[in-house]
Amino acid sequence: MLYHVFMDVKIPRDLPAEERADILAREKAYSQDLQRQGTWRHIWRVAGQYANVSILDVRDNAELHQILSALPLFPFMQITVTPLLRHPSAIRGDDS
Amino acid sequence: MLYHVFMDVKIPRDLPAEERADILAREKAYSQDLQRQGTWRHIWRVAGQYANVSILDVRDNAELHQILSALPLFPFMQITVTPLLRHPSAIRGDDS
Amino acid sequence: MLYHVFMDVKIPRDLPAEERADILAREKAYSQDLQRQGTWRHIWRVAGQYANVSILDVRDNAELHQILSALPLFPFMQITVTPLLRHPSAIRGDDS
Amino acid sequence: MLYHVFMDVKIPRDLPAEERADILAREKAYSQDLQRQGTWRHIWRVAGQYANVSILDVRDNAELHQILSALPLFPFMQITVTPLLRHPSAIRGDDS
Amino acid sequence: MLYHVFMDVKIPRDLPAEERADILAREKAYSQDLQRQGTWRHIWRVAGQYANVSILDVRDNAELHQILSALPLFPFMQITVTPLLRHPSAIRGDDS
Amino acid sequence: MLYHVFMDVKIPRDLPAEERADILAREKAYSQDLQRQGTWRHIWRVAGQYANVSILDVRDNAELHQILSALPLFPFMQITVTPLLRHPSAIRGDDS
Amino acid sequence: MLYHVFMDVKIPRDLPAEERADILAREKAYSQDLQRQGTWRHIWRVAGQYANVSILDVRDNAELHQILSALPLFPFMQITVTPLLRHPSAIRGDDS
Amino acid sequence: MLYHVFMDVKIPRDLPAEERADILAREKAYSQDLQRQGTWRHIWRVAGQYANVSILDVRDNAELHQILSALPLFPFMQITVTPLLRHPSAIRGDDS
Amino acid sequence: MLYHVFMDVKIPRDLPAEERADILAREKAYSQDLQRQGTWRHIWRVAGQYANVSILDVRDNAELHQILSALPLFPFMQITVTPLLRHPSAIRGDDS
Amino acid sequence: MLYHVFMDVKIPRDLPAEERADILAREKAYSQDLQRQGTWRHIWRVAGQYANVSILDVRDNAELHQILSALPLFPFMQITVTPLLRHPSAIRGDDS
Repeated sequence: MLYHVFMDVKIPRDLPAEERADILAREKAYSQDLQRQGTWRHIWRVAGQYANVSILDVRDNAELHQILSALPLFPFMQITVTPLLRHPSAIRGDDS
Repeated sequence: MLYHVFMDVKIPRDLPAEERADILAREKAYSQDLQRQGTWRHIWRVAGQYANVSILDVRDNAELHQILSALPLFPFMQITVTPLLRHPSAIRGDDS
Repeated sequence: MLYHVFMDVKIPRDLPAEERADILAREKAYSQDLQRQGTWRHIWRVAGQYANVSILDVRDNAELHQILSALPLFPFMQITVTPLLRHPSAIRGDDS
Repeated sequence: MLYHVFMDVKIPRDLPAEERADILAREKAYSQDLQRQGTWRHIWRVAGQYANVSILDVRDNAELHQILSALPLFPFMQITVTPLLRHPSAIRGDDS
Repeated sequence: MLYHVFMDVKIPRDLPAEERADILAREKAYSQDLQRQGTWRHIWRVAGQYANVSILDVRDNAELHQILSALPLFPFMQITVTPLLRHPSAIRGDDS
Repeated sequence: MLYHVFMDVKIPRDLPAEERADILAREKAYSQDLQRQGTWRHIWRVAGQYANVSILDVRDNAELHQILSALPLFPFMQITVTPLLRHPSAIRGDDS
Repeated sequence: MLYHVFMDVKIPRDLPAEERADILAREKAYSQDLQRQGTWRHIWRVAGQYANVSILDVRDNAELHQILSALPLFPFMQITVTPLLRHPSAIRGDDS
Repeated sequence: MLYHVFMDVKIPRDLPAEERADILAREKAYSQDLQRQGTWRHIWRVAGQYANVSILDVRDNAELHQILSALPLFPFMQITVTPLLRHPSAIRGDDS
Repeated sequence: MLYHVFMDVKIPRDLPAEERADILAREKAYSQDLQRQGTWRHIWRVAGQYANVSILDVRDNAELHQILSALPLFPFMQITVTPLLRHPSAIRGDDS
Repeated sequence: MLYHVFMDVKIPRDLPAEERADILAREKAYSQDLQRQGTWRHIWRVAGQYANVSILDVRDNAELHQILSALPLFPFMQITVTPLLRHPSAIRGDDS
């Protein structure tokens, strides 16, 4: 089941550089791991913003929340979730 | 080059049923033709709304506008365009 | 799986009275049928507004959309969907 | 009498970890106690957000405010209250 | 129990003059009747707008909705309800 | 002359407890003094919020501002002023 | 006593040309009459919009409303009122 | 050439009292000097807010910005500029 | 003197096709004439919208309004004006 | 390919003066370098605000983001990107 997730990142200026680097490294590993498993279907950067648009493929709302709330950047993100479904005009097998 | 396009549809109540059916049939054919060509990469329905989230892969802003403004439903849509690019954490070959 | 659905109704003034009455009767029957099946878990009127807050229990996003878009009042509603999940402090068996 | 309450939590980063843990433990106990009494009818987590949707069953506006303003997390919450009532299409005995 | 109610009126231009006059007369009588009973505690015009701020004293959310939805102008109003309670600094006996 | 005043209070967390207690005590005394004089006609708490709705009866805009800007909590409030007048349907002598 | 009034005009397309011309002529005469009396202190057009910013000098909220609600264009305007007073840095005799 | 300028002031709490007093004194002198020159045509306080509405008469956009950005309070203000022109109904010689 | 002008076009569906074509032809001629004179410095289409961003170079606010309000599409546009000036980092001779 | 970019700058008060001066000098050099290359086509200051409107001419979304995210002021800016294209009424060779 697919969800559209918009993630807007605001890292506070006073976060120590090392802590920041560590969080970003863990965020990247976490995201790539989920991409490899097929759960995090797509991730795109929004031009001009420290933000991304993602498509997640999960079992249900609970799994979606479990994944998002475990993001290393979660405390510094504003997240907007939009539930998606197959569009009647879609022709790609994986658009649902 | 990828763009995130949100299309919100409001068909006026007084549009004759036949004209409406004709527009919807042409919209579907137009969208599926572009999907087959790989230009309209993804299309998803938004749960509970007469709206969709789409990803288009076009040469430039001009081609994007030419495609969107030629949509049979264009006069009845509120469209929001967000330019995307490859995310540094993306691993899929086709996420850019 | 639970969803919070806010439905705001605006019936156009020029809808013939008979058509209006027919839609409202079908809307009520449709809602009560789904309530009896346990799909439409809760429905409450919002004080001072022609609007309701509902909790739906469905299999997935697709079933949610299928149910909402089949509402007789769907063309006259502004619908907002919020995906829910069990709260870690919940104690009721049916709050998920 | 039922009220729809949306609670959006923003705990400041500089709150000492111990104070934070203590507040969260007291919040959970407080909420579960009121759930057991039947006052806090429902509580759901909103997917992707540190927020919840709750239904409270209280005597009047004053009792509602007394309960909400005594929440251990109250200073860190943005709360929105919506008064509810029985919907004319409701069939469940406890939807009012 | 007190509620703050903001009523914003937009009467459509094509409402026949007679129907309009009739609705306004019934609205006035209805409001004054409830004022005499003490239910509609206060009503003030907002300067420069076809709108009013009112304070209603009712038994519960259900009675509030029953009163508001029976307003002759209800179909032409945007209504916002805010539940009130006695302020800890209030000294007037009737501010609750 | 009546004004509707909405006061939304946000006291910063780092305000010393003593200073906070002192400000709140002075705010209460100031408000009650003006209530006794009949200037601060009504004050109600908004359910679930650290906010109040008030009705002030003053000579003119200047007196209103003099009173509001002298509130001990003024630096910590977001204030919205709405000028009111007698509603043509009002029957109470003191609704103007 | 001064008020800042923003008037945004939207005349419906289907208003007969003659009625429109008549309303505009009466609006102009009405405004100029009040300007001559010193009540309508200032009126400026907003660049690029069918809107104006005005300063009115009236006895009280009631007189302000009486004047605004009698504007021939009142049914076609969105009006926003802001109560003003003398600024402590003002030096002009007539800025209050 | 006239501009409508809305200035909303938010002085941070941690600004040292002396610095604050100095800024306010310089702001007042600066404003009064421009008022005497006829550049700052009007200034009014907004009731209940630390904000003002001003009318400036300058040569062009560049002079307007030079004046506003040199305000001692500029770093603590949210400024909104609206270009004005003579209204066709204006009768005062100085309303343009 | 430069102004940034955003023009959002909404032509009503019931405008006769001939009238529409005539307005569009006159709009184009009007715009191109002003472009040739150097007054309408730039005009760009916004991707996915029936809207444009323009830069106009005029003598003052009054000339700007005279030009905009004479646009054949003016009654069907929502226009937003932003006054511009030379940026301190600009190097192009014509960016002011 | 052209993009409209609005940049709103908010430099935190506690940024050391030297760091601030250094960032501003690098920002200016960076912008002027891109202007000389023809990439940063236009830059204008918005009157009364610490903000600018710019037109960038880049190969694609990715280059746009690479340029914007490398701005020395990027961490202190709110950036809004709007993709542009040649307007059908444009006559200037470089308006696309």
